[in-house]
Amino acid sequence: MKITHIEHLGIAVKSIEEALPYYGNVLGLTCYNIETVEDQKVRTAFLKVGDTKIELLEATSPESTIAKFIENKGPGVHHVAFAVADGVAGALVEAEEKGVRLIDKAPRKGAEGLTIAFLHPKSTQGVLTELCEE
Amino acid sequence: MKITHIEHLGIAVKSIEEALPYYGNVLGLTCYNIETVEDQKVRTAFLKVGDTKIELLEATSPESTIAKFIENKGPGVHHVAFAVADGVAGALVEAEEKGVRLIDKAPRKGAEGLTIAFLHPKSTQGVLTELCEE
Repeated sequence: MKITHIEHLGIAVKSIEEALPYYGNVLGLTCYNIETVEDQKVRTAFLKVGDTKIELLEATSPESTIAKFIENKGPGVHHVAFAVADGVAGALVEAEEKGVRLIDKAPRKGAEGLTIAFLHPKSTQGVLTELCEE
Repeated sequence: MKITHIEHLGIAVKSIEEALPYYGNVLGLTCYNIETVEDQKVRTAFLKVGDTKIELLEATSPESTIAKFIENKGPGVHHVAFAVADGVAGALVEAEEKGVRLIDKAPRKGAEGLTIAFLHPKSTQGVLTELCEE
């Protein structure tokens, strides 16, 4: 696969409203969009820094994976998403051939209309890893 | 402070030798440098992706903060480092004025000769945060 850059960092927060003043007033980053991804039970706020986005993730239900992540590890970096220049579908085939366990067997639609798929952290040195293409 | 991009992601790994094949063979990223930072009790391997580096961190002693991090949370993203265009010293003053708890009261030298300082995760929404300048 051909990775060009880190598309975004997913950061689990208890509350987007409580997190944004830190990102805005201290780090000087601007939130340009907030959206809810119903099927993932998350609300997400997007900020841009260089060629990477920061995606703040807030659980909208106690069953959300974000709620469980915070319960286990506390708030913090939840996943790293790489932009793949030559397509997520091919990257998944390649990753699986190389022994990587896939969470998503096929690409699906994620936030901001991206085509995405997740690799399992057991196969990625502990980092929940997302591949995405525009 | 004026943040331009994510300078690097610090990722705690059990073993750089075991982690590099994943980063190289699966993600296609190249390690261009390995160095040991004696006073931090870590060995670090650097890879570049877009305008961000990935810094793999391996403990060289059980007392290393990386060893303790892995014991508590498992391997994964340890810290996020932002490049500050207008200097780390001023950024620290500004952050402290805005109520952020500092780990480093003054800038110090980090890996690759960067001037760095860490902010405390209690003040940064759970993300251990590094500021750096070249």
